Amino acid sequence: MIVILKHGVNQDMRQPLVDWLEAQKLKVHVSEGEFQTVLGLVGDTRQLDMDLVGSLDIVDSVKQVTDPFKCCNRKFHPADTVVEVGDVKIGGGHFAMIAGPCSVESEEQIVTVAKAVKASGAQLLRGGAFKPRTSPYDFQGLQATGLELLKIARQETGLPIVTEIMSIEHLDLFADVDVIQVGARNMQNFDLLRHLGQLRKPILLKRGLANTLKELLMSAEYIMAGGNEQVILCERGIRTFGDYTRNTLDLAAVPMLHQLTHLPVIVDPSHATGRAHLVEPMAMAAAACGADGLIIEVHNDPLHALCDGAQSLRPEQYDVLAEKVRRIREVSAL
Amino acid sequence: MIVILKHGVNQDMRQPLVDWLEAQKLKVHVSEGEFQTVLGLVGDTRQLDMDLVGSLDIVDSVKQVTDPFKCCNRKFHPADTVVEVGDVKIGGGHFAMIAGPCSVESEEQIVTVAKAVKASGAQLLRGGAFKPRTSPYDFQGLQATGLELLKIARQETGLPIVTEIMSIEHLDLFADVDVIQVGARNMQNFDLLRHLGQLRKPILLKRGLANTLKELLMSAEYIMAGGNEQVILCERGIRTFGDYTRNTLDLAAVPMLHQLTHLPVIVDPSHATGRAHLVEPMAMAAAACGADGLIIEVHNDPLHALCDGAQSLRPEQYDVLAEKVRRIREVSAL
Amino acid sequence: MIVILKHGVNQDMRQPLVDWLEAQKLKVHVSEGEFQTVLGLVGDTRQLDMDLVGSLDIVDSVKQVTDPFKCCNRKFHPADTVVEVGDVKIGGGHFAMIAGPCSVESEEQIVTVAKAVKASGAQLLRGGAFKPRTSPYDFQGLQATGLELLKIARQETGLPIVTEIMSIEHLDLFADVDVIQVGARNMQNFDLLRHLGQLRKPILLKRGLANTLKELLMSAEYIMAGGNEQVILCERGIRTFGDYTRNTLDLAAVPMLHQLTHLPVIVDPSHATGRAHLVEPMAMAAAACGADGLIIEVHNDPLHALCDGAQSLRPEQYDVLAEKVRRIREVSAL
Amino acid sequence: MIVILKHGVNQDMRQPLVDWLEAQKLKVHVSEGEFQTVLGLVGDTRQLDMDLVGSLDIVDSVKQVTDPFKCCNRKFHPADTVVEVGDVKIGGGHFAMIAGPCSVESEEQIVTVAKAVKASGAQLLRGGAFKPRTSPYDFQGLQATGLELLKIARQETGLPIVTEIMSIEHLDLFADVDVIQVGARNMQNFDLLRHLGQLRKPILLKRGLANTLKELLMSAEYIMAGGNEQVILCERGIRTFGDYTRNTLDLAAVPMLHQLTHLPVIVDPSHATGRAHLVEPMAMAAAACGADGLIIEVHNDPLHALCDGAQSLRPEQYDVLAEKVRRIREVSAL
Repeated sequence: MIVILKHGVNQDMRQPLVDWLEAQKLKVHVSEGEFQTVLGLVGDTRQLDMDLVGSLDIVDSVKQVTDPFKCCNRKFHPADTVVEVGDVKIGGGHFAMIAGPCSVESEEQIVTVAKAVKASGAQLLRGGAFKPRTSPYDFQGLQATGLELLKIARQETGLPIVTEIMSIEHLDLFADVDVIQVGARNMQNFDLLRHLGQLRKPILLKRGLANTLKELLMSAEYIMAGGNEQVILCERGIRTFGDYTRNTLDLAAVPMLHQLTHLPVIVDPSHATGRAHLVEPMAMAAAACGADGLIIEVHNDPLHALCDGAQSLRPEQYDVLAEKVRRIREVSAL
Repeated sequence: MIVILKHGVNQDMRQPLVDWLEAQKLKVHVSEGEFQTVLGLVGDTRQLDMDLVGSLDIVDSVKQVTDPFKCCNRKFHPADTVVEVGDVKIGGGHFAMIAGPCSVESEEQIVTVAKAVKASGAQLLRGGAFKPRTSPYDFQGLQATGLELLKIARQETGLPIVTEIMSIEHLDLFADVDVIQVGARNMQNFDLLRHLGQLRKPILLKRGLANTLKELLMSAEYIMAGGNEQVILCERGIRTFGDYTRNTLDLAAVPMLHQLTHLPVIVDPSHATGRAHLVEPMAMAAAACGADGLIIEVHNDPLHALCDGAQSLRPEQYDVLAEKVRRIREVSAL
Repeated sequence: MIVILKHGVNQDMRQPLVDWLEAQKLKVHVSEGEFQTVLGLVGDTRQLDMDLVGSLDIVDSVKQVTDPFKCCNRKFHPADTVVEVGDVKIGGGHFAMIAGPCSVESEEQIVTVAKAVKASGAQLLRGGAFKPRTSPYDFQGLQATGLELLKIARQETGLPIVTEIMSIEHLDLFADVDVIQVGARNMQNFDLLRHLGQLRKPILLKRGLANTLKELLMSAEYIMAGGNEQVILCERGIRTFGDYTRNTLDLAAVPMLHQLTHLPVIVDPSHATGRAHLVEPMAMAAAACGADGLIIEVHNDPLHALCDGAQSLRPEQYDVLAEKVRRIREVSAL
Repeated sequence: MIVILKHGVNQDMRQPLVDWLEAQKLKVHVSEGEFQTVLGLVGDTRQLDMDLVGSLDIVDSVKQVTDPFKCCNRKFHPADTVVEVGDVKIGGGHFAMIAGPCSVESEEQIVTVAKAVKASGAQLLRGGAFKPRTSPYDFQGLQATGLELLKIARQETGLPIVTEIMSIEHLDLFADVDVIQVGARNMQNFDLLRHLGQLRKPILLKRGLANTLKELLMSAEYIMAGGNEQVILCERGIRTFGDYTRNTLDLAAVPMLHQLTHLPVIVDPSHATGRAHLVEPMAMAAAACGADGLIIEVHNDPLHALCDGAQSLRPEQYDVLAEKVRRIREVSAL
């Protein structure tokens, strides 16, 4: 860690800080420049409160020179992690197509959609049983029943299932779920992450609405520090001033994350844009820039069927998309 | 709810949607304009998925005309809610000064700070026992021991205590805490909110880093829908492109929230700015625009003592601030 | 235009507004709902100050139902605009590769880079002569001399030139420039846009750092309203809380703009990311989601040559990128 | 300037960069840490392209240790600048009340409002003659006629006038204007700023919608570097995800700017919030946190008169606000 002192801070002014740092068992290298002095700290700086030191009157800024993430850091683990879900592989050149309805509504619905997306090449089935809703008065999902319906669809199609958890109270209910999803609003629910770190099954971790890539990686670290190394990261749009799409899909996060971490990175173009006609072009863009998979909403309910145009695609639209993504993948993977 | 159809959508194109809406037991008033048609929906539209309807190809946009928040809505409860914590009142003209260290570190520390802030006029003691940290490797707080130390400080000074909860697993531990704080990262941890709604004690709900005022009110609604009406809202800065302060304090939220809700609204200038020299001016600004209280970090630890300048104030700085805020309050409350 | 009145506003309360609107020569259709009343305005509402009406105490919100942009609106001009620069076509299925150094530095530099990018398939040469710099003390570009050097490079290679204008004082100097670029900081320099509308040559209009798509289209409208219909739009990243890249590339803007307007839309992955290793994946993503071209920085200066890694690519890196983009285009254009 | 190299960069890898830096006539101090190496650069680093160096593969980050702003930097000019407009002083303890209509509409309107705000204690009259409008089809202001009407109001009341310039073509027209305003959209119109630097009259410089404080100061520097030192800074709200107010008023910018610069800082609560009922509380908050003045919209037109509630205040509302601000000032200036 490097502490850059303010212009004009002399030895007398900095000595109390140097003494305090040395009392924390750190070696302090003082490097005096013409305009400023820099303190280089050697030793275990993880317990140091960077914000506290950085906010001192004599300090200009503090710079961490080693990454705070360890388990997910590519520097210490250069090879891509390949997450395995049954026969399906994600990462390290393996591209995963995950698809299904926003919410599980009935056995007929989930089985029909599961069969359709499987026919288009999807390898995993998604579907919400517990739904995070801004309003307590809105439909909260079929909950335990929804999980059972997902399992029926899995039995009918052989597709492993991906679904979101919202509380540590439900951990037992999720014992037989193949991939547990952590939603954007829970990305920094550290208590939930810690519990998921005790499991030995894949976790799909979505980036929060206003979280940096470093914060996303630190949340993955909460899971991995517990011994569960099967984490899939998911970019699903961030909150900006933009008003044409629900969120702003930050696709540059895909190659950037690939540089920083060995974990697979997938993209959710459905939630990122909130508009059906943008899902296909953004899915193609995600495949072109190196994403390891796509999670996409596909429906078959009557309102969509009659009017078209929602965030979810109809099965036949998904079929076209899947084919286009395959072609992009063939070219971009060269 | 109003559904505005796109320019050029004729009766044939809209009929399937009208039929579908009527099947949802809604009355649909069609109002044709020269350039567009508007559907006015009458009935219980709460179960309707606005996003779904809004994303249809023939729909320009959907507009909710009644607020989605009920319990906290000022329209249905014009009088200010006054939250009572022992003898202390917050809201409805009662201004609360809450102060204390970021983390509880030792009995000596918390008792010393508690006595100091009480002498300056603080009415509640804050202090973190469970700390939400971005990194799993950072200090996570003294946890249960920290809660015990807070209770000792309460006994010594008579100040009720405010401290943050991070998991429903800890609800029992918080049984004797006076005000339970929900941090910014948990503002949309709906499961936690629901459990807090079952309690009958004041909840201090902090606005999330990237949450709108409506989302904050809907989170309050999760608590109140469970029967717990003692909710205190807290503006603590939002995440923007700004880089001089840790967050951007959105003070206009204070009078705006006062218009929308009857709940008390307090301000946290310490976390919002992350810089000690900005805490006093922002505390004065918050008092001037009608906040119902201030939650401020005050410390007495050696690093601060020797160097000064952190986000936390020294007790003597807090004493000056408290006096200035009192004077602003006398003038602004006229 | 639709004016949605607040819940509880009765006829007496709304009559003064209705009278005032009718005095503005508008027909007012009143549609009373169970919970709210909507006023539909028919007539020329362009002169109406939406913000003013929307801010009235009795008004909930105001909704424009016709787009404020006319000349660039796809509704009134369904066919793609194809901008022609000499033999080069942009839009309507024609994909343009624009490349060159950030700043023009010397004849040798600009001619060398121009030859290299031409060999890789670039059709237009970019290079900054007048540089917008945050600091008045920083290098402001070679200015008029830079323009002359660009013309020499054009003569040597046949590539038309694209360069940025910063002042109406320089319009004469730009008479012989093939495509005039308006930078992000000048996107709402309405005076400059108006002058460019008097020309009859292509304008490359970059989206501002914090501007919505509608604002971008309205700025195009300033140019087109003057009779100059050859406008190329450019997405180059927006300002968000993100900190890993210089800006956040908003690629969903590409298909969204294609729906809204008939103008060509290109992407600048160099400025959007500020990191060389992200330029290639983002260029491929842009091609995959339907962009009509790419403007990319390519250099040959010593610092880059020795160290590599800057925002600009080396010619041999650009050559690889160009080939990959061609393959993506072949697939995505199917 | 400090260049922090990446972990693992050894001497061989860094030598080309060190050589190149020395060729730029800089002295390079190498400080090797256990985990990283830091290069301290001594000499004139202003011509160095920080972004370029920072983007090299071997570089972690670059840190400027001296501020890039000179003329407006408080370090080199500790005393507050007091801008004088006739008898009116702004800054250094002098608080300026600036008020008037959004647009100049007629002689009667501007004279009436001028007299009203003068009676309430306003010292300067504002009014738009040239209006920056997002749409080319919207009312663009009375332009030259508007300037003449402002001068009539000045003659009638003695109030100096403040009005916005949009083009260097109009500089002659503004020769007799007392304070020239640069709007948020032109904050980085460097050409305009440079021309204003040649004048010797006060410039009111508004912060751009998405500009940092450093960028605001660098724009002031463009004016001051030309010799015009009479610059007034203005916080008027920034663009965020927030949707209840037009912009997010960043009040912490006021004390932060006071620390960084000696220039006066005023606040525009009308444009920042876009809602009349928020103007008074935000004006009081601005006064409480140390602003040097307020620029506020006051109207007397019929729509406002009949309905109330717009961004602009009625004269009688402004009178109440002015009195409250005076009381806050008395307390906060203690």
